[in-house]
Amino acid sequence: MAIITLTTDFGAGNNYTAMMQGVILAINPDVTLVNVTDQIPPQNIKEGAIVLNETTPWFPKGTIHVAVVDPGVGTDRAILYAEIGTQRYVLPDNGLLSYLTKNDKPDRLIRLENREYFMPEVSSTFHGRDIMAPVAAHLSLDVDPTRLGPPADHFVQLEMPKTEITADRIHGVVEHIDSFGNLVTNISTDMLIGRITDERVVVVCGLYETWGIRQTYAEQLEDTFVAIIGSSGRVELAIVGDSAARRLAIPVGTPIVLAWE
Amino acid sequence: MAIITLTTDFGAGNNYTAMMQGVILAINPDVTLVNVTDQIPPQNIKEGAIVLNETTPWFPKGTIHVAVVDPGVGTDRAILYAEIGTQRYVLPDNGLLSYLTKNDKPDRLIRLENREYFMPEVSSTFHGRDIMAPVAAHLSLDVDPTRLGPPADHFVQLEMPKTEITADRIHGVVEHIDSFGNLVTNISTDMLIGRITDERVVVVCGLYETWGIRQTYAEQLEDTFVAIIGSSGRVELAIVGDSAARRLAIPVGTPIVLAWE
Amino acid sequence: MAIITLTTDFGAGNNYTAMMQGVILAINPDVTLVNVTDQIPPQNIKEGAIVLNETTPWFPKGTIHVAVVDPGVGTDRAILYAEIGTQRYVLPDNGLLSYLTKNDKPDRLIRLENREYFMPEVSSTFHGRDIMAPVAAHLSLDVDPTRLGPPADHFVQLEMPKTEITADRIHGVVEHIDSFGNLVTNISTDMLIGRITDERVVVVCGLYETWGIRQTYAEQLEDTFVAIIGSSGRVELAIVGDSAARRLAIPVGTPIVLAWE
Repeated sequence: MAIITLTTDFGAGNNYTAMMQGVILAINPDVTLVNVTDQIPPQNIKEGAIVLNETTPWFPKGTIHVAVVDPGVGTDRAILYAEIGTQRYVLPDNGLLSYLTKNDKPDRLIRLENREYFMPEVSSTFHGRDIMAPVAAHLSLDVDPTRLGPPADHFVQLEMPKTEITADRIHGVVEHIDSFGNLVTNISTDMLIGRITDERVVVVCGLYETWGIRQTYAEQLEDTFVAIIGSSGRVELAIVGDSAARRLAIPVGTPIVLAWE
Repeated sequence: MAIITLTTDFGAGNNYTAMMQGVILAINPDVTLVNVTDQIPPQNIKEGAIVLNETTPWFPKGTIHVAVVDPGVGTDRAILYAEIGTQRYVLPDNGLLSYLTKNDKPDRLIRLENREYFMPEVSSTFHGRDIMAPVAAHLSLDVDPTRLGPPADHFVQLEMPKTEITADRIHGVVEHIDSFGNLVTNISTDMLIGRITDERVVVVCGLYETWGIRQTYAEQLEDTFVAIIGSSGRVELAIVGDSAARRLAIPVGTPIVLAWE
Repeated sequence: MAIITLTTDFGAGNNYTAMMQGVILAINPDVTLVNVTDQIPPQNIKEGAIVLNETTPWFPKGTIHVAVVDPGVGTDRAILYAEIGTQRYVLPDNGLLSYLTKNDKPDRLIRLENREYFMPEVSSTFHGRDIMAPVAAHLSLDVDPTRLGPPADHFVQLEMPKTEITADRIHGVVEHIDSFGNLVTNISTDMLIGRITDERVVVVCGLYETWGIRQTYAEQLEDTFVAIIGSSGRVELAIVGDSAARRLAIPVGTPIVLAWE
């Protein structure tokens, strides 16, 4: 069966997700629905873009991912259909694709304009339900994407925090806090290839530092501050058995430095 | 595939929803399950009734909606099967149908009495799992509703907040707070037909007032107090980019007046 | 369709659950997914074991339950496939089976070792996604469990709080707090057979006491402290219409005594 996922900032306990699911099932009752999350922080496009990038590549080829973090609803911002690798996306053109595209262009990009695939009445405030959900449902029934609207050349890209790499240092930032309170940085494992990760590297973030980059939490004592290769393939800072974000009060955007002796 | 939705007050992270899903799948493993919400405020029948009315009409014809907001569980309150428009409901008789019926009768109303379709053991405290879930599962297998019990003539209706409409005024109340903290009123768009919604109408709620009724959030500045036509087709009060409920401390039940010059 | 459930401590709003669902659907797109909960308290194996025991027996024969409460991820703790009654489990060997087995052995127990059924790359920190999800998906496609690894003889069992039963007393403990704030004890209804449950039994917990064990909340006044036969088949302590855990500040582990006159 075709699969449609939903990633939104609607908040815990909302019934907006269910409205979208109802709209989708009314068009294609045989689709498999997956709720990625409804707890992207309100209107936080960057966080939505990070979650899409971390989550959607795990899904099977052809999965349709709908993302509704849409502060511009009701303005003339475009709504896009995009194909990137094996995955398909329906989302407002506001930067949500930024981490997925990694500064490349999507393999295909279409601006949704054909109202034939929208709900008959389109509200000004909920395009997730009235445009994105029905378009995704029609796509899951094998509607040809070229029917949805004209090709788009351009899409909004967020400015991404940069890393800076020298012979004995990597500079990055805390980019994201996961649901365990771990501080996920923008330093990926491929930047560590050929470098030593044992006690000869010091990791500094805010007022805190730790020596070495670990493979697993389990080798460390409770309450220890550690740098670790996270499951997202990036360097993370964590307190073993607790929330580093809460304990250390380190916000997103804080610089991090890895320095080799 | 047949669809069953669940709307409950079980709370975030509960495992009661999963027990109901297990019971349903044990009877009909080929049903599609949708969780509308498990975060109706505890025992808040009115809020459950509002959410059912906002959400369920979006689903395809024949969808079975189970609602478990059931402070009377264990008393002799009835459990009902109802058909309203294209949708079907299984729920306790305590007012949950009030907004759906809009003072009409359901198209069909049956009192669940045939224990053949209940779980073999029925607890005193969880009829959602022991009666409503198995009945919904059997309905999804095309059991004839007349087999569930005798027709019912009467059902509990909540007293609904009234609107009062004069030549130059509409009086209503804040009926509901959505997950964004918007204040949703009982004044619907059809009451505005033929009336001016630009700066010549003043909207007053508690200590706050604003001129005009907007079509979209996006045309307003951050932190502005606005009246808007919400996605539910009703007048809503909002703070652009924030929670009006939290910022203004306006509770459900607060009167609202629209006054034309 | 085959059914796979997920029980985790990932926390509200996480996207780890969706990663696991993506991995499963990429192997078997025709599986039915149920999210039991993602809100087991972090690393609380005992609570995970209780929720598995309360929830999973309601599912149809052959359902595959994946549980990820895994503080030992990255150590050499085993990952197990277990069959208990009609249900199947994939989980780390850390005590999660304790309440399901009730000191018996599972009907079948296998240690997952065959990397052919794992993801090609296995991280050190997320075996739920990289081992348990793909193994569960392959099982849902009827892979013979003997292919997963060698039989296991031994599994970790938590020490379970004991009850003590005399002619006129039952001693137990508060074992678990449900999402309504009810205090669920380890005293089950079968211990009450042949005993009087009306006003001639006094129930004492911490500083609080109540006479009689009720069948339903509805027969009691709001704000009353009651002992009741809960939907889990165990004696629960509750405040009618409120959270007993919050109001009385009684933690898990508090002794409870039922004493007959």
